[in-house]
Amino acid sequence: MTANVAILGASGYTGAELVRLIATHPGLRVGALTADRKAGQAMAQVFPHLRHLDLPVLTTIDAVDFGAVDLAFVALPHGLSQALVKGLPASLKVVDLGADFRLSPSEYETWYGAPHAAPDLQATAVYGLTEFHREAIRDARLVAGTGCNAATVQFALRPLIEARLIDLDDIVCDLKNGVSGAGRSLREAMLFGERSEDVAGYSQGGRHRHLGEFDEHFSRLAGREVRIVFTPHLVPVNRGILASCYVKGDAGAIHAALASRYAQEPFCIVLPFGDLPSMAHVQGSNFVHLGVVGDRVEGRAMVVATLDNLAKGSSGQAIQNANLMLGLDETVGLMLPPIFP
Amino acid sequence: MTANVAILGASGYTGAELVRLIATHPGLRVGALTADRKAGQAMAQVFPHLRHLDLPVLTTIDAVDFGAVDLAFVALPHGLSQALVKGLPASLKVVDLGADFRLSPSEYETWYGAPHAAPDLQATAVYGLTEFHREAIRDARLVAGTGCNAATVQFALRPLIEARLIDLDDIVCDLKNGVSGAGRSLREAMLFGERSEDVAGYSQGGRHRHLGEFDEHFSRLAGREVRIVFTPHLVPVNRGILASCYVKGDAGAIHAALASRYAQEPFCIVLPFGDLPSMAHVQGSNFVHLGVVGDRVEGRAMVVATLDNLAKGSSGQAIQNANLMLGLDETVGLMLPPIFP
Amino acid sequence: MTANVAILGASGYTGAELVRLIATHPGLRVGALTADRKAGQAMAQVFPHLRHLDLPVLTTIDAVDFGAVDLAFVALPHGLSQALVKGLPASLKVVDLGADFRLSPSEYETWYGAPHAAPDLQATAVYGLTEFHREAIRDARLVAGTGCNAATVQFALRPLIEARLIDLDDIVCDLKNGVSGAGRSLREAMLFGERSEDVAGYSQGGRHRHLGEFDEHFSRLAGREVRIVFTPHLVPVNRGILASCYVKGDAGAIHAALASRYAQEPFCIVLPFGDLPSMAHVQGSNFVHLGVVGDRVEGRAMVVATLDNLAKGSSGQAIQNANLMLGLDETVGLMLPPIFP
Amino acid sequence: MTANVAILGASGYTGAELVRLIATHPGLRVGALTADRKAGQAMAQVFPHLRHLDLPVLTTIDAVDFGAVDLAFVALPHGLSQALVKGLPASLKVVDLGADFRLSPSEYETWYGAPHAAPDLQATAVYGLTEFHREAIRDARLVAGTGCNAATVQFALRPLIEARLIDLDDIVCDLKNGVSGAGRSLREAMLFGERSEDVAGYSQGGRHRHLGEFDEHFSRLAGREVRIVFTPHLVPVNRGILASCYVKGDAGAIHAALASRYAQEPFCIVLPFGDLPSMAHVQGSNFVHLGVVGDRVEGRAMVVATLDNLAKGSSGQAIQNANLMLGLDETVGLMLPPIFP
Repeated sequence: MTANVAILGASGYTGAELVRLIATHPGLRVGALTADRKAGQAMAQVFPHLRHLDLPVLTTIDAVDFGAVDLAFVALPHGLSQALVKGLPASLKVVDLGADFRLSPSEYETWYGAPHAAPDLQATAVYGLTEFHREAIRDARLVAGTGCNAATVQFALRPLIEARLIDLDDIVCDLKNGVSGAGRSLREAMLFGERSEDVAGYSQGGRHRHLGEFDEHFSRLAGREVRIVFTPHLVPVNRGILASCYVKGDAGAIHAALASRYAQEPFCIVLPFGDLPSMAHVQGSNFVHLGVVGDRVEGRAMVVATLDNLAKGSSGQAIQNANLMLGLDETVGLMLPPIFP
Repeated sequence: MTANVAILGASGYTGAELVRLIATHPGLRVGALTADRKAGQAMAQVFPHLRHLDLPVLTTIDAVDFGAVDLAFVALPHGLSQALVKGLPASLKVVDLGADFRLSPSEYETWYGAPHAAPDLQATAVYGLTEFHREAIRDARLVAGTGCNAATVQFALRPLIEARLIDLDDIVCDLKNGVSGAGRSLREAMLFGERSEDVAGYSQGGRHRHLGEFDEHFSRLAGREVRIVFTPHLVPVNRGILASCYVKGDAGAIHAALASRYAQEPFCIVLPFGDLPSMAHVQGSNFVHLGVVGDRVEGRAMVVATLDNLAKGSSGQAIQNANLMLGLDETVGLMLPPIFP
Repeated sequence: MTANVAILGASGYTGAELVRLIATHPGLRVGALTADRKAGQAMAQVFPHLRHLDLPVLTTIDAVDFGAVDLAFVALPHGLSQALVKGLPASLKVVDLGADFRLSPSEYETWYGAPHAAPDLQATAVYGLTEFHREAIRDARLVAGTGCNAATVQFALRPLIEARLIDLDDIVCDLKNGVSGAGRSLREAMLFGERSEDVAGYSQGGRHRHLGEFDEHFSRLAGREVRIVFTPHLVPVNRGILASCYVKGDAGAIHAALASRYAQEPFCIVLPFGDLPSMAHVQGSNFVHLGVVGDRVEGRAMVVATLDNLAKGSSGQAIQNANLMLGLDETVGLMLPPIFP
Repeated sequence: MTANVAILGASGYTGAELVRLIATHPGLRVGALTADRKAGQAMAQVFPHLRHLDLPVLTTIDAVDFGAVDLAFVALPHGLSQALVKGLPASLKVVDLGADFRLSPSEYETWYGAPHAAPDLQATAVYGLTEFHREAIRDARLVAGTGCNAATVQFALRPLIEARLIDLDDIVCDLKNGVSGAGRSLREAMLFGERSEDVAGYSQGGRHRHLGEFDEHFSRLAGREVRIVFTPHLVPVNRGILASCYVKGDAGAIHAALASRYAQEPFCIVLPFGDLPSMAHVQGSNFVHLGVVGDRVEGRAMVVATLDNLAKGSSGQAIQNANLMLGLDETVGLMLPPIFP
């Protein structure tokens, strides 16, 4: 049986990535595509690389017959999902790719500057980091996709924080982020002429909203408040996040912990001790590559995690969660190897 | 039933691309990988993006048990396939991705400067442009993959030459080529610092070896000698060929002819009249996008074709042919959408 | 003596390039910078790479004291210069970098869809292709900068058309254009994610407005109507235009004509016969590199010209012209070598 | 008076950058260019972007008449300068761009695995970080250029270490490095296809040889042993290093210290507190941009420095030092603004 899915907000990069992945997914079928401002257009006009696919025309959300839909992927700009999801049929499974249900209401207000519009619903949402919330996701009606940076760093650090293998007061995460993370919106800073040949930090000083996720999850795991230092940097690549996490702890023990934790995970690969992963080696895929090295400075280690922000960091993760929610094998449709070069 | 395939010459980009495509192909399994100079290494050492796959270790060609192999993909540097294929079991199906069997012996000697080492075998080889040699490929034992440039331009021009819709004495093809076409070999001109921010023509003046294919096929189709003007230019992208073909003829008739010719082809998509295709919109896929525009100068038209040189231009084409040779559906494993951005 | 110049429209890439070049120019000083929508900002806010320079704050055009200005560079969007220049003091020398004064009024209306607002002024404007209009530029009050594509192709073809060395009815120019030619304006197609890894034609079929310049100048030189086929293609580089011009004529004679014509030109360099120029080798400079190759198809040749669209194609050309208008040596401030890699 | 300089090792990127900068330098003239393996070639063959310059033909080092040379820039691979410089006339001023004279003999042996071949000479060498060794450089016969990474990080940290504004035991420097730092040598990892779309760390775990410089200089400044954590990452840009230094200290005091220290420095620009520099904004120039931000985690700050590795990080620094050694103004020939985009 093939599940019928709707993609709400299909004119952005994560929407297109959902369509790409579903195209070869044997258990999912795209039943509806929405994009309010582009309603009436064919998907091929908005994303010509998908022109070979037989897809529904873009509509407004109002025009979707949710009775025929098994699961909705919501890929709307931050703030729009809250009210929307409230209005969807309670029987409809929902995977939200945005920020609206990722955080507890109080953290949400802290980072997004407005009270949450659907706190009751938020309380039922399951956090979508599949490898750590698998069982709850299986039974969830609403899954909240993680931030792409938040996913990357959590793959590197969660097992270490939980096992107290690293100094919780001295965690520095320096991220290198491909430009597609900024979406397809028109901003001068995202023009080719501005990004090509450039590297620059942004959201510096602890202002990035994904910190809300770290604060919540790392503190919960540690049983105490944890505040990491985290700075993302834009690099001129299309896809990919590479997180270099500088920690204090025993590098060998750290490597062992990660290798053990991910040994059975189909998408998380820990490299041999001392090797570092490359962003290009996960591009287009749902894989995470992790590396651990010790430092000549005793007691210091670096953990590096890399993934494709549009795939494993967002749309791939969403499908992985949808697979679970629909009773499918978690890896269905997601074993596409990276594309290189 | 799954066919067991060997990839001879697996340490180059086309070898890796074969592995990538076979990884999600339900009818093929990688039974052997060879790379003489890297024999003994794991594929993950040579191409870490494939590290999640369970693949045979690289061996020398001598170490392959061809009795257990149903079909061999030969991705060796030019000149090495001739002797090799002669020595393979006659029952083994072979898809050669190199230049050795593409040309008639006389053309081969003209363009490659040496007599052909296996002219008898060459006489049995079927030219691998699937959309035009499908039936012969189905029954072939040895299929000769086309040049990647040769494929791109032939998709644009073959139907027009055959139908005499264009002036055969005035065909100018200007190509823009991604760098992966040059393979993974060490050449100063292919360093990032040399290619980034650069565009430059090469093999100028009619010296590119893929001209041998054009000369043979276009002349045969036309029933007279045809010599096109053809200049490739390196552009700083990883994958892709975009061929801008300037012709004399009626643009509307040209568009109609291409649209008609490719209407039933699963991989060849003709855009609406007046639209031009984009290289990025086929990246990572087996699709060809074609566009036709008229010119304000009466009687002139431009036909543009674009494809991914590693996929449809080489390894994807090879698998498409292997599918036919093995009695599988031609599109199996090849419907992966392009990856964008 | 140092001339005081104003840059009207300093918030675009050509404005910034003027500032860059003037910074090391011993005969020019930036006296005023305007950008209506960014008036009040420091140039360092708009272009942080210029932050080390002591520059005037951006103002509106109205706020400029033109009495203190010797020459104005006008780098405004198409259509805005006409009325503006009419209102400037008659004693003020003007170099317009836009399209407003490039074409005769009738051609202007054809290509820009509106009657020219200052036809009298247009009649006095000198076309700014320095190497071909040097003497008139020296005495001009108003110089009209060329289109960047128009400059590139004219360097390749003017001497050949004038000397009737090529078939005037069969000229095909295929251009590869860096993205900065589109300026800094916000367009989805110019985002990094859209341009990276892509090549695509645009303004296809003879619709590009620079064709107006070709039509006028080539026809005048030939003494008959000349209409070339011309298609630009966007390539993922920041700066540069490479024009591949396919012509019919004797390649040796063509090379000799170009070599002779440019032998004394400081910025035009003709490569040895058979060599092709590279876009990267002129980046950041005022140089044009030209190459000529014959083709195996008898009577056919390719002429390739490349230049930096922001420098020689626009702001460098403007300064070259300003040098002449101000009685300075034409090359002052413009001998900066290209930057490579 | 114009000084006659020789560039020994002119076929690499730093050699070409020296020629580029000297081309517009009013006080220097290129008297000799050497490249042993390319002796006899014109520089235009090796670096066609320099073809407009009138340069000496490449020769072997033996063929140089050092009697006519005032100063030699030595841009040879590591290990070759030691013996060479020993054999040069004692009256010849030398700026070495390599690693041979950067470190004390014991540190040299630690990091380069071989005893120093000219320890006496090494003892006389002055470390070439101009802003910190200006007076000694003025009188030096032999100046040792710094590592490009070493320069970047020292600009960020030296004033802070000297003033004890940061915790010396907790300094983490994460670098993003353009590919030209690897030079023009043939390595698979430096092919366009391998670097494009990739980010990856290298020399991880404290193995990078530039650490020798940090160890020596930071320890000397601090009066105790200082060992920083330092990991460089390759990013797909041609030129540039951006160092993100994570430190413990008062961000405001750190900013004030840097702003004060560099207030009179012509090439070091400290951005307003809270702003971060961009790699693209120094490209092609001799400028360093520095930024300081505080973190929401109390007592933590980030200092970011960026420069062009080929210019300020190597060849520009070398000319800055040569200016001092020759009694010229330190900034002559080096005030070229960055090129953007």
